[in-house]
Amino acid sequence: MKTALIAIGSELLRPGARETHSDWLLPRLRSLGLEVVSRQVVGDDIDAVAKAFAHARAGARVVLATGGIGPTRDDVTRQALARMLGRPLRRHAASEAAVRRWCRRYRIRFTGAHATQALVPEGARMLRNPAGSAPGLWVADPRGWVIVLPGVFREMTAMLRTLQPRLRRIAGKPPTFETLRTAGVGESRIDARIARVARRFPEIEVSTLASPGEVRIQLWGGAGGARGVASCRRGMARILGEDLVSARGESLEEVVHALLRRRRWRIAAAESCTAGLLAARLTRLPGSSRVFAGGAVCYTDAAKRRILAVSAETLRRHGAVSGAAARAMARGAAAVFDAQIGVSVTGIAGPGGGTTEHPVGTVHVAVVHRGVTRHRRWLLAGDREKVRVHAAALALDQVRRSLLRAFRGRSV
Amino acid sequence: MKTALIAIGSELLRPGARETHSDWLLPRLRSLGLEVVSRQVVGDDIDAVAKAFAHARAGARVVLATGGIGPTRDDVTRQALARMLGRPLRRHAASEAAVRRWCRRYRIRFTGAHATQALVPEGARMLRNPAGSAPGLWVADPRGWVIVLPGVFREMTAMLRTLQPRLRRIAGKPPTFETLRTAGVGESRIDARIARVARRFPEIEVSTLASPGEVRIQLWGGAGGARGVASCRRGMARILGEDLVSARGESLEEVVHALLRRRRWRIAAAESCTAGLLAARLTRLPGSSRVFAGGAVCYTDAAKRRILAVSAETLRRHGAVSGAAARAMARGAAAVFDAQIGVSVTGIAGPGGGTTEHPVGTVHVAVVHRGVTRHRRWLLAGDREKVRVHAAALALDQVRRSLLRAFRGRSV
Repeated sequence: MKTALIAIGSELLRPGARETHSDWLLPRLRSLGLEVVSRQVVGDDIDAVAKAFAHARAGARVVLATGGIGPTRDDVTRQALARMLGRPLRRHAASEAAVRRWCRRYRIRFTGAHATQALVPEGARMLRNPAGSAPGLWVADPRGWVIVLPGVFREMTAMLRTLQPRLRRIAGKPPTFETLRTAGVGESRIDARIARVARRFPEIEVSTLASPGEVRIQLWGGAGGARGVASCRRGMARILGEDLVSARGESLEEVVHALLRRRRWRIAAAESCTAGLLAARLTRLPGSSRVFAGGAVCYTDAAKRRILAVSAETLRRHGAVSGAAARAMARGAAAVFDAQIGVSVTGIAGPGGGTTEHPVGTVHVAVVHRGVTRHRRWLLAGDREKVRVHAAALALDQVRRSLLRAFRGRSV
Repeated sequence: MKTALIAIGSELLRPGARETHSDWLLPRLRSLGLEVVSRQVVGDDIDAVAKAFAHARAGARVVLATGGIGPTRDDVTRQALARMLGRPLRRHAASEAAVRRWCRRYRIRFTGAHATQALVPEGARMLRNPAGSAPGLWVADPRGWVIVLPGVFREMTAMLRTLQPRLRRIAGKPPTFETLRTAGVGESRIDARIARVARRFPEIEVSTLASPGEVRIQLWGGAGGARGVASCRRGMARILGEDLVSARGESLEEVVHALLRRRRWRIAAAESCTAGLLAARLTRLPGSSRVFAGGAVCYTDAAKRRILAVSAETLRRHGAVSGAAARAMARGAAAVFDAQIGVSVTGIAGPGGGTTEHPVGTVHVAVVHRGVTRHRRWLLAGDREKVRVHAAALALDQVRRSLLRAFRGRSV
């Protein structure tokens, strides 16, 4: 069912501010069967908010707004909604009781501002706020539904959770949705490889979302399309082979952790250009200490020699940005942190430091396990931060590939 | 001047997608004097886009839209704009010539799709695309201006740059804008401390933007308000004292780098819970190798002992999450990486691992320089990732404070 989102609050239009509520809501609503067809951000201005409500209703059956229902004078969402509906705002006994209860609980004096918070447009229902003072609003009429949630993130998410059964009833049967994740291959190549399978399932909407080094493939089938989606997913998984991280939506970190835990191995990292970003990803999940032994960020040759025991000979003959250095760094990390497997990244993130032989964006990754080394080299595009993030993702993916091979009894 | 943004493209409404064009445009337009009062995201649907244009015009003098002007059948922005204006789409000689030139240059056959790209609503002007094939559009009429830019980020930014002089003329005098940055103090405390100064300048709009461990204060004065803004900034800087990172908008990294370079010092980092995030921030800027000696991520007690030479006695008596351990880690990092100054973070990011004495969110930071140590402890709120990011910011800020003290000839 077509749904329009409105985020209300002048602070959301300030330079540097981000409107992330809709980002959060969008996939959750979609999985309930509510397809977002438009998003708006508007400041705390009665007239502008009322017009935003009217505009949203013109294109969607469900309108979901967040923000502007707090106790301050800025907050005008209730008034704007009443104006758009052409109905008066009324005192509402249950709503006022809820706000009074909340004030008592936190020993706050109930004021006129709180009373305003409890007003409800005639015919609308109030929504209990499980995490704050401001009740939400629920309007149902022949044109559809208008739902207003608080702007405070914690309150908004808590209220949405309690609303899920009701939203499901509105939406009817939810769509079927599955996610495949890949790593180490660019979006356009992934697109090209899955195209043949996608064509066999014209009723399924296939979309890809890329971040540096990783691509998510989303499959959306209509209500009752579970079999088709599962079949499409299997077809794509077969084609993707080792480039597939997970056909069940698990992240690269989750898959690497699971592989390490199955072997009871721990990993150590040696980093140059990524400077900690790889270690940070390896430890993003809870319980990381079971699989992560330690990491060293060695920018200088001196540090590479002292901490990782990379030989002066290797650095002189091949340079710090080389396969030989990467191999020695991975070995050194595994040794010094007493880990079964070691991974390293060395490269040139830029903007300076590039040469004809080693241009900016050159990245070497090595993974070592029991003396067997896997090594790859890339030339990555983008600015310093993008090269760093991309390189960390590729290194994590090389760990995954090495672990898969180790499981199959092959060399890393 | 009031400005409305519209981002056009069905891909922007897919779960997981982010609409970042408006995030990028917002501060840039504001500095030109164009104040964004609403944002919309809408899919590639002629009717929906035409309505979005009409709705945007109702609340703003300038409407700036991005996307939907490419050569594919999805792209309907031109048609939608013509429909909203009530004017026909016409062939446009200069526009078609520009597209033909682009096709020749990249040896692409000029097709009907390209001809569509060159259509222009009657009375509108075309905008040359310095980085791609799709020309933009510029409509000026008594109701204001409608500007359409390409959806490809690189083309959009390139076209905006060429438009800046024209946009400045539309907007009249730009506002005065300055940014102060603080670290180590929460947003509500910063708000309270600057409130008295802010009240002395009622004509200046003051807003704060918080990220974990850091707060940006933005001061917006009207056209010609430069003196007032500068005076307000100075007043706030005085009150903020050492909590002020920069009164000129420089980032925490930039300030720490500048302080290290002035002393010709290099820094080493020892991390437990932040696991590389601090090293990654210390190396975010180009030229980091001049100020960063290296980092160690030591999760386990064994690694803390072996790499950082933390004594078994310290770990046994005080535990790994303690001021004593933090101090020893910072000393160890400085020693092993041969750095003049060392910083460490140790803590419990959660969700597991907390105890009554050391609950989840406990973080210790130590900075050591020439045997003198600075140590602080925090209890941070939020999930694992938030605690990690927050702790890394606080550690970086402790480095800044220590360097400031070292400059003043005081102990770190």
